[in-house]
Amino acid sequence: MFPLDGTRRALDPGSVLVEGSEIVAVGPVDAVDADPRAAGAEVHDASGRAVLPGLHNCHLHSGLLRGTAESKALWEWLRDYVDPAHRALTPEIAETASLLAYTESLLAGTTSVMDMWRHMGGSARVAERLGLRATLVPYVADMPGYDYFETLATNRELLEEHHGRADGRVRAWVGIEHLLYCSEEACRGAAAMVEEFDTGLHTHSSETTYEVEQSLERFGRRPIAEFEHRGMLGPRSVVAHCVWVDDDEIEILARTGTGVAHCPCSNMKLASGPAPVAALRAAGVRLGIGSDGEKENNTLDLFDEMKFASLLEKVTTLDATAGDPWDMLEMATSDGARVLGLDAVTGSLVPGKRADVITVALDGLHTTPVLHGRDFNVAAHLVFSSSGHDVRDVWVDGRPLVADGAPVGVSVAEVRAKAQAAAEELFERRAALDS
Amino acid sequence: MFPLDGTRRALDPGSVLVEGSEIVAVGPVDAVDADPRAAGAEVHDASGRAVLPGLHNCHLHSGLLRGTAESKALWEWLRDYVDPAHRALTPEIAETASLLAYTESLLAGTTSVMDMWRHMGGSARVAERLGLRATLVPYVADMPGYDYFETLATNRELLEEHHGRADGRVRAWVGIEHLLYCSEEACRGAAAMVEEFDTGLHTHSSETTYEVEQSLERFGRRPIAEFEHRGMLGPRSVVAHCVWVDDDEIEILARTGTGVAHCPCSNMKLASGPAPVAALRAAGVRLGIGSDGEKENNTLDLFDEMKFASLLEKVTTLDATAGDPWDMLEMATSDGARVLGLDAVTGSLVPGKRADVITVALDGLHTTPVLHGRDFNVAAHLVFSSSGHDVRDVWVDGRPLVADGAPVGVSVAEVRAKAQAAAEELFERRAALDS
Repeated sequence: MFPLDGTRRALDPGSVLVEGSEIVAVGPVDAVDADPRAAGAEVHDASGRAVLPGLHNCHLHSGLLRGTAESKALWEWLRDYVDPAHRALTPEIAETASLLAYTESLLAGTTSVMDMWRHMGGSARVAERLGLRATLVPYVADMPGYDYFETLATNRELLEEHHGRADGRVRAWVGIEHLLYCSEEACRGAAAMVEEFDTGLHTHSSETTYEVEQSLERFGRRPIAEFEHRGMLGPRSVVAHCVWVDDDEIEILARTGTGVAHCPCSNMKLASGPAPVAALRAAGVRLGIGSDGEKENNTLDLFDEMKFASLLEKVTTLDATAGDPWDMLEMATSDGARVLGLDAVTGSLVPGKRADVITVALDGLHTTPVLHGRDFNVAAHLVFSSSGHDVRDVWVDGRPLVADGAPVGVSVAEVRAKAQAAAEELFERRAALDS
Repeated sequence: MFPLDGTRRALDPGSVLVEGSEIVAVGPVDAVDADPRAAGAEVHDASGRAVLPGLHNCHLHSGLLRGTAESKALWEWLRDYVDPAHRALTPEIAETASLLAYTESLLAGTTSVMDMWRHMGGSARVAERLGLRATLVPYVADMPGYDYFETLATNRELLEEHHGRADGRVRAWVGIEHLLYCSEEACRGAAAMVEEFDTGLHTHSSETTYEVEQSLERFGRRPIAEFEHRGMLGPRSVVAHCVWVDDDEIEILARTGTGVAHCPCSNMKLASGPAPVAALRAAGVRLGIGSDGEKENNTLDLFDEMKFASLLEKVTTLDATAGDPWDMLEMATSDGARVLGLDAVTGSLVPGKRADVITVALDGLHTTPVLHGRDFNVAAHLVFSSSGHDVRDVWVDGRPLVADGAPVGVSVAEVRAKAQAAAEELFERRAALDS
């Protein structure tokens, strides 16, 4: 069992005692068995499995474009594929996209997502129905040509209607699509809305050199500096990507307490570049991990993402000691919760936190052998060999959401059929707009 | 269906007709159904799945060290972890390591492996029993300090006893562990043995800058140039890694027709660096893909490896059009077969070749939606979203080796139990040697 409580130690074997939605004891099996509160408790035997906190995906987009827009550079890909799909999107299709993304996430052991998407009332309903933690962030944009995005007004509606629902599992944040898509006024309005609702702010930045050049040309500042100028940074803000940040920008992120969602697969696949994670970590910047969307990755599997994050850090620095498995496990659990401002509630297996727990099978050949004691190899397995396919059980707030690899209360076949139909409709609508 | 016959087109839907071990027709379903030879044929309905040639792993090592030697630089890792394990290895443990590696490979859709390992009579027996194609390459070394490796004499025994067994599915090649582990005499002896047995030669090279420096210092030539000087390169030779090759060495590889086994995960994980695949491809060098071993990767899943290969190429070149999914599919199938000298027999679905065929499920949420026609997205799914976990069926020479995700004729539980016991024995023996 991996408490991920900052100690970088596994309890092998360990046990976690849950009362209702809360973890009340964590420790060696014998110690927890001897706890008086354990008497008569229902036992879920996870022998031979790894038990760890649910994973936090700090940056994703619901979507249905998987595999349809490949081998394109970022700005061409946005213009030719992503924007037309945005124009064709309906609230119903958007809701189904969230159903697909959140169910896929749960099956892969992700109990908490930060989703930047559109028409997010539907996303809120899906999250409430499925039972995972979801931080919903509308893509707000107001520059000419981006009128199909959300607005501060629709973001306000989402905050008013859905923020804090489902016992706090469903939250709304304020979203700014992109520096180049938003006026300074929109950015300042977003920052004010964060204060008003006591919530968070999420945006993308510094994904490409083009963006940095444009920011310098239009605003006379690099993007992170411009965001600071617009009052958007601080401990409740999270910026995705941060690939092309210079030392001054890293200092700004650290000084303001702004979190970063590191998206290694997306940064590789869109040829954005490798984010300077070692420098960000060294500066004390809070780092979570994000899959980005189905169109950038093309999976939402944070086990895969941990492997990519580790290996990208190793090959970029040419230092094999970088990207340690424990760094990755923390980034996907406790640090991710911190980035999302959820660390008082979840992110580690410690008494007092909510019971967001997953089990991961270790009996596949790809995780053989399993060794204990001096040669303990399960932390490495989880990062380098396991995948979301190995996740067997998921609980959020103590409620079972995945059991024996299948979602509870929703069927994979149903989700798949709905998503397939919605995608076909989306592509038909897009083709009709094109013609 | 993906014939991988050089056309980069899928038959959607397609059908393959097999007689005995041979493919006799490939085409649209209707056309194959109308073939007189199809009358009365047993039908395997793979609707909703991708059908493609079995994958070729052009560089792996059987082994049992998975996850036990992490965050180490290559030469330290070899000295502290890998070499002591080699000293503790027995023929029985080595055979079980191959049982694990080959069964794991088959389950992930790999029908052909090139394995560099030791005591390979056991590997040959395992390969013959399991039914996959295996090219067995003993690690030969003769420099002081490496006396636990194989010798040209044991390589000769393997060639005499096992080369061409199992209807040609089991082959032996000549192996040179490493330039720095082998004398010039051993290398020349290896090259002579290749001629004598009309077989192939496999080695590692240019994985680290240390190696290049040592080669220059000791031999006055860079490694690939030194290998050419020792008579080891040519169309029957395959060199793994080739990370730190300069333009002259790329020219040597191209001119001699030497194949390269590209191992992106290993090169990232050991912080070796990114191999110059674009330059190698542009020079006309034959490129296959390799997982390397369980201790370097830590899985043997070529679907994952294709994703790493593509994304590493994109991020290294900062060109999102690099690492196209079709390049990856060809590297893992038809090009891999060519690297292994098996392209007359397998590597694509074309009449006259052996029926080495796999099916891959596409009904998971991570491969939703599946789109046809103009928006066809299955090639991208296979590279970016699928994994070995999605493989459902595997045939080699027309014989079913995996059915519905489970190996035929051997149980995962049996393989796992044997491998677990062998690993525990290996670690005990290693600890005893240490003390």
